[in-house]
This record gives sequence, structure tokens and C-alpha cells, in this order.
Amino acid sequence: MTNPIDPVQLTADLLRCPSVTPIEGGALVLMEKLLSEAGFTCTRVDRGEVSNLFARWGKRGNGKTFGFNGHTDVVPVGDESAWTRGPFSGDIVDGWLWGRGATDMKSGVAAFAAAAIDFVRDTPPDGSIVMAITGDEEGDAVDGTVALLDWMQANGERMDACLVGEPTCPNEMGEMMKIGRRGSMTAYFTVSGKQGHSAYPHRANNPLPPMARLIDRLAGFELDQGTDHFDASTLAVTTIDTGNPANNVIPAETRATVNIRFNDAHSSDSLTEWLRAEADKVAAEFGVEIAMTTQVSGESFITPPGELSDLISAAVQAETGVTPELSTSGGTSDARFVKNHCPVVEFGLVGKTMHQVDERVEVAQIEQLKSIYSRILRDYFA
Amino acid sequence: MTNPIDPVQLTADLLRCPSVTPIEGGALVLMEKLLSEAGFTCTRVDRGEVSNLFARWGKRGNGKTFGFNGHTDVVPVGDESAWTRGPFSGDIVDGWLWGRGATDMKSGVAAFAAAAIDFVRDTPPDGSIVMAITGDEEGDAVDGTVALLDWMQANGERMDACLVGEPTCPNEMGEMMKIGRRGSMTAYFTVSGKQGHSAYPHRANNPLPPMARLIDRLAGFELDQGTDHFDASTLAVTTIDTGNPANNVIPAETRATVNIRFNDAHSSDSLTEWLRAEADKVAAEFGVEIAMTTQVSGESFITPPGELSDLISAAVQAETGVTPELSTSGGTSDARFVKNHCPVVEFGLVGKTMHQVDERVEVAQIEQLKSIYSRILRDYFA
Repeated sequence: MTNPIDPVQLTADLLRCPSVTPIEGGALVLMEKLLSEAGFTCTRVDRGEVSNLFARWGKRGNGKTFGFNGHTDVVPVGDESAWTRGPFSGDIVDGWLWGRGATDMKSGVAAFAAAAIDFVRDTPPDGSIVMAITGDEEGDAVDGTVALLDWMQANGERMDACLVGEPTCPNEMGEMMKIGRRGSMTAYFTVSGKQGHSAYPHRANNPLPPMARLIDRLAGFELDQGTDHFDASTLAVTTIDTGNPANNVIPAETRATVNIRFNDAHSSDSLTEWLRAEADKVAAEFGVEIAMTTQVSGESFITPPGELSDLISAAVQAETGVTPELSTSGGTSDARFVKNHCPVVEFGLVGKTMHQVDERVEVAQIEQLKSIYSRILRDYFA
Repeated sequence: MTNPIDPVQLTADLLRCPSVTPIEGGALVLMEKLLSEAGFTCTRVDRGEVSNLFARWGKRGNGKTFGFNGHTDVVPVGDESAWTRGPFSGDIVDGWLWGRGATDMKSGVAAFAAAAIDFVRDTPPDGSIVMAITGDEEGDAVDGTVALLDWMQANGERMDACLVGEPTCPNEMGEMMKIGRRGSMTAYFTVSGKQGHSAYPHRANNPLPPMARLIDRLAGFELDQGTDHFDASTLAVTTIDTGNPANNVIPAETRATVNIRFNDAHSSDSLTEWLRAEADKVAAEFGVEIAMTTQVSGESFITPPGELSDLISAAVQAETGVTPELSTSGGTSDARFVKNHCPVVEFGLVGKTMHQVDERVEVAQIEQLKSIYSRILRDYFA
């Protein structure tokens, strides 16, 4: 048995690659070299200006396939002079590893790669392990995991289950995994009336009272009370703007934006229909026009608690003593794409400093994460 | 009997003075010279950067005093190249006199000065005529008619009745006089909640729903149904602004402006109290802070129909064949200051082109206006 891969050293090596989206920065080159040497078949699946890496160990169609998904791209460093340690230094000080991507999620990629390399070398499974590692998660995410999944489909590659290594724990290692996400959509309303003088409102048709009525109704509506695995859907009015500086003028137009995070009781289509109907009601009451456009960031999805979540829960419990909550909270991740292909769950370390200045991670957590991923592989192929 | 003063020529002379507020532009100098030569005692009552002219004919305390109020300052010309005739040309073409101030209100000043000069020369009354002519009606109006009235009070000058020569007729000569005005005030609301992420509205306190509720309530409230001499009071929401470009962020604050035109069923104090109470109710319902500031442009006022309006109505009827409506509509004028000193009514010609490019007046209307003012003086002192 050769020496195990050190996930802390690997994370530090990745942190030294300045891979701010969409720059590859050497991170995927490093991963490709490492995985190739460990017997993985690697394919660069670049699309547009984005670099992506697909890696497989084991023969296709030979037993079941476990997948890991993650990204090596990072968000910009912000004010570099505000960092205590260089954002691409990979410095380790007092048990902490510093750098942009330390939590989100070079540590996750390093941990699952290290776990998989050791596993296939020491106890080659009767099946396959694939890794879909993208350089476009923090950006538009159109040429990243989507490109990898497209390529996989076109090339007969598949996964029976997938673990996304994003940081999922709010404060303590092991406390949360994600089994789905709420959907997110934004609606933009423009109410158009008729401009006029404030002294003669009957000659104008003020768009502001109907906008106030519409927003009051939408904000006061209970979309649902939550479902089996989801919190209640929420609606947040994020802005109302008119930009009329003259208090003797009734404006012709006003705009508002509403963001909805919705669970599996809804779809973006059903919500769009509801919003349109509410807007139509108000438009008719006030005799104004209400235009609406929507932007859908993602539908809600869920991998219902079962085999995959049980497997991960047991591994986390065994390694940390903590039973993870099965959550559907939080923003979007590439799990929203993977869920169209196979059951997907997210589990990773504590993401507290992600996207912040002085992003850093406890080295002990990286080691623990590798242990958890290793146990998942052992149990999955057992 | 010498030649009567030509009010058209006098208006043209005034139009050639570029007296854009607060510039005197030669207009008051011209009036002072003319009135002095006609036997009026003139006093320049300048205050701050503003020029004003007080003129009296007749001995103080000798019979009753009729006053005229008006202004020689004008609003800016706007895009000078868009004018068909020079805005300070005083050109007369096809029966129309062109220039900034042609309707608002150099023609009014010329007409009442011409009427008064002829009257005191031909049939000297047993009483006094005073003129309070300001150069600050179109500006802040703090050093204009107010300064003249202050000076008059300090110097024992008074009027028993006053006619403001502003253009009051919407379309046809003679159709409207103003016996009062609605009050005007503006309220500025700021709702302060707690910023947060759109995905977690329960951790934030969104100021937009309470703002929508408040605006919906205010806009839907019937202030009154009108009073004896006034239309119903009106409330116009003029803007709601937040300026939050991020649809994943719940803003901390939003602002709105509400303009109220109110009749004699209200005062700015009673309305402020009502607005504050409504804001307090909503603030309590949503647990937000709502700050409110108000700006009062003027209280409502009325010179009830009676001796003065009858006098003017009869003169208008006799000269034009039209019985003027006794209106309280429209924006503010200096009558709001004069009403604290004596009964005041406004009557002038058709103001259709006021404040516009190509402001102009029919010369026949100026002559008619002089005739009306002359008849008013004859009847008043009869």
C-alpha cells in the first residue's frame, strides 16, 4: 500500500492556481495529471471559454457508477489588500489553510479526488467512479456542469448516484447535507398609467396606487406552508422604483421586482400564471397596463430521502458523530443540473467564509471530509 | 383729456425687459417711471436679490383703497431656438403679441397700470389705489409679494380689497376668476426595515410590503367630497423609490412621496396628523420604522363670494358678455399671501401658453382686460 493522497496538500496546490471564473488557472491541468497517474481516464470537455474535466475509473457498464461533481473555479478575490494572507498563497497557519476557494470548493474537489484515488488503488471496486469537475460554477454556469452532462450523455457516460462536494455545513462539520433546493424565479412588473399634474389626478392615471395594491397583495399571499422536505415558499419584493423627482407630477410608469423561492408545490410556470392573474386583476381594477417578464434561475428539485441520503448520513455520522440534517435550503448549485441525470445529494464542509475576504478552512476538516468521502465509497461499493 | 395709456404697447415694452427671476431686467424701472409720471408715489421695496415696487395714488386714510398685485418676473425661456419669435422680442404679428410673460403676466401688469393711470387722471377717486408689483413670483416667492406686504404693514399701508392680475381664464376671455385656492403639501416617507437575502425573508424585515400597504391605504382614502367653494381634496402618490438592483437582496429602506391638494375641510396640520397616524398604524403592523417629513406650500384659502367677487363678475360680464365661474382650482399664486391682509380675488386673461415656448397673447385680450380693470375701478369708487 503506497502513501495515501494528502487532501490538505492537494487543496493548497489548487489554491495556488488563480482560477477565477472563467480562467482555468492550472487547476484542472493539475487534477488531470493527478487523476491520469492514478489510472483515471481523463477527458477535457471545454466549451466556450470554459475548461471542464471528465474522469472515469473502471470500465463502462461494469457494475454501478458513483459520481462526484465539483468545481475548481473561484469568485474574484475582492480587495486583495484586505486579505491577511495572499488569496492564492495556500498558506497554512495554526491549522488553517488560507485562500480563495479554501471552502468553496477546492477542498471538496481535493477531498473527493484523494478519497477516490486511494480507494481504487487499495480496494478496486466492482464498478466505476466518475468525476465531473467544472471551471464554470461561479459564473453563468452554462458551459460548465451542463457541458459535462451533455458530453456524458452524448458519449454514453452515466452515473447511478452523484455527490456534489459543495460546502453544506453552516457552522459545524457534519450538521447538514442538501437533498434538493427550492426553485428561484424573479418577476419584473411595469405598471403604465398616464402622466399628469399632481393637482389634477382625475386627468391622469397614476400607476403607483395599482403598483402598491399589487405588491401589497403579492407580499401578503401565503404561497404554501411548506411540503414534506421543503420550507414554505417565500416571496420577496426587492425593489419598487419610479424615479420621479417632481412632486407636482404624476408619473406615467413605475417598476417593481419580486423574487420567489419556491418548493415542490409549485413550478415556475404555475407561479408565472398566478402572478399574471394577480397583475391582470389589479390592472382591471385601476384601468392601467401591467407588463410582466420573468426570469427563472431554477426549478425546485428533491432527491427524496432514501438509499443515497442514508448512505451519506451514515458515513457522516460514523466520522463526525453528528447526524446531518437533510436540508433543501440555500442558493443554487450545480446539483440543479445533475438532478436531471441521477439522484444527487450535496455534502461538504463548513462554508462560513466562502466568497469572503480571508476565506480559509480548518485543515482538520479537509482530512475529515476525505474520510467521509472514503467511507461513502466503501459503503457504496460494499 | 390726454391720450389713454396703450396697454398693448406697455406690455410689449415690458416683454423687451429680460426679467427672468430674480433679474429685474428693467421692467420695474420702467413701471416706476411710468407710475411716478402719472402721480403715483413709488417705493422700491427690494429684499435679498429681488426687486419689488410699491406705488400709491391718493392720500393714506383718505377713503377706501383698492389694490392691484402682480409680477414682472418671468420663467426661463427654455430652448430659445424653439421659439418662432424671440422670447424678448415683443413682436406683434397678426394680432398676437409674442414673448415670455405675454400671458403670465406682463399683460396683466400693463393692463391694470394703464387702467389705473387713466382712471386717476380722468376721474380722480375719493380714495387710493395701490400697486404691489413683485419681481419674485416665479421663484421662491419669499422676497416678493411677502416683502411688499411686510413693508406695507410696517409703513401703515393697507388695502381694502385686492385684485391679482394673474391669467385665470382656461380658454375663453372672462370665463373664470379665482376666489381662493386649495392648499398644497407634500409628505416624504421613509420606511426602514432590515436588509437581508431574498432566500431568507424571515431573517430580514422588508420595508417594501409596509410601504405598499401604506400607499395603498393613503391612495384609497377619500379625504372629502368637496366643500361649498372647493372641489374634493386630492392625494397623488408621486414616486416610490428603492434603488435596489440586486434581486437576491431585500433592501433596508424605501422612500415615497405623496402630494396633497386640500380644501378648507383640512389644514396642513390636520393632514400631517392623519398621515402620521396612518404611518404609525402600518409601522406597528409590520414592525418597521416609518419616518415622515412634510413640506407645506400653502394652506387653502377662500374669499367667499360677496362684494368683491360680485364687483368683478359684473365688470367681466359687462365687458365680455361672459359670467365668470368663481373657481378655487389651479396652482399657487401670490394671492395666498395677500389673503392674510384683505379680501383678494384673481382675474386675468387666457393663460393657455404660459410657461411654454411661443408664449403669446391676443392684443385684443389685453385691451379687453384694461377695459375690465377700468370698469372695476369705476364701480369700486362709484
